[in-house]
Amino acid sequence: MASGGEPALGPSMGMARKLAAILSADVAEYSRLMGEDEEETIRTVTVYREVIATFVQQHRGRVVDSPGDNLLAEFASVMDAVQCAVAIQRELNTRNTALPLQRRMQFRLGINLGDVIPDGERIYGDGVNIAARLESLAEAGGICISGTVYDQIATKLALRYEFLGERAVKNITKPVRVYRVHTESGPPAAASE
Amino acid sequence: MASGGEPALGPSMGMARKLAAILSADVAEYSRLMGEDEEETIRTVTVYREVIATFVQQHRGRVVDSPGDNLLAEFASVMDAVQCAVAIQRELNTRNTALPLQRRMQFRLGINLGDVIPDGERIYGDGVNIAARLESLAEAGGICISGTVYDQIATKLALRYEFLGERAVKNITKPVRVYRVHTESGPPAAASE
Repeated sequence: MASGGEPALGPSMGMARKLAAILSADVAEYSRLMGEDEEETIRTVTVYREVIATFVQQHRGRVVDSPGDNLLAEFASVMDAVQCAVAIQRELNTRNTALPLQRRMQFRLGINLGDVIPDGERIYGDGVNIAARLESLAEAGGICISGTVYDQIATKLALRYEFLGERAVKNITKPVRVYRVHTESGPPAAASE
Repeated sequence: MASGGEPALGPSMGMARKLAAILSADVAEYSRLMGEDEEETIRTVTVYREVIATFVQQHRGRVVDSPGDNLLAEFASVMDAVQCAVAIQRELNTRNTALPLQRRMQFRLGINLGDVIPDGERIYGDGVNIAARLESLAEAGGICISGTVYDQIATKLALRYEFLGERAVKNITKPVRVYRVHTESGPPAAASE
């Protein structure tokens, strides 16, 4: 917990903070899947979690933790985080086509950009909570990003974005701008769409 | 994933299952604490998590994972799990008296007894979900246990128990009997209380 040479302010020891792109993921309808077939669900979530971890690594990210059907990852670059998320959804979408409809497992992904407080392998902070909130707003198989992420990538990544409005986040004063990222392959649509 | 020499039944590979007492913990009002003082909250949750992990180990349990303000542990014995939970709440209660009221951090604990499916370091299954549900029903600084736990320990552990009724759990057909365990030190009260 070195404070980078800066003097401590007040009673705070000045925990180190760093900017990170945070990816939060969870399985849509996980309870239903487990309720219908526990063992098959465990097999699928294990394989899909490994797929996600591989993509995170390939995009220079780090899986922070992955309890149950959740996964939290951090990236030093917003571009990497978003491209990783799109790659994950496309790959899982392809894998799902091999499964019966009722057995398909879709992840919801949320990406935020913000200060985090690293503590060993863990990360803390508003930025993490906002990523989890964005994830909960995503559709099954979908991606939601915050306005701060959108501002960084919109002109750089040829994807379709849709503004979903501002949403409140528990204990965060300012509402968060939310965008949906469309993950279909193919040419990006015109701005009017 | 050895199936213990038993023939596989149908399409299932027969994942190994084992009976375990599952302890689920989380911090009450974590968002408020983080919102009011992020760094102080991280310090407290880090210390308290270590306290809990130490007690779990002392009671022959294993911490499965502990993302954010959550902690999941398993025990081979129901007695160990409940005694551990009581020890944790008493210790954290004592530690909290040293903190200003607004900075006190209280955990909610839930304990269930059930089959789990181990997968490496992870555990899966209804029993885990029920433990999490019991935790959410506990008061700050309190413990809730399922009826199956109660049946095992009520005559063995001199604690005060209070029946809270049956509660529904998502995707579990049968409602779960819920008991509150009182953690105050002192002689156990008469059955009529």
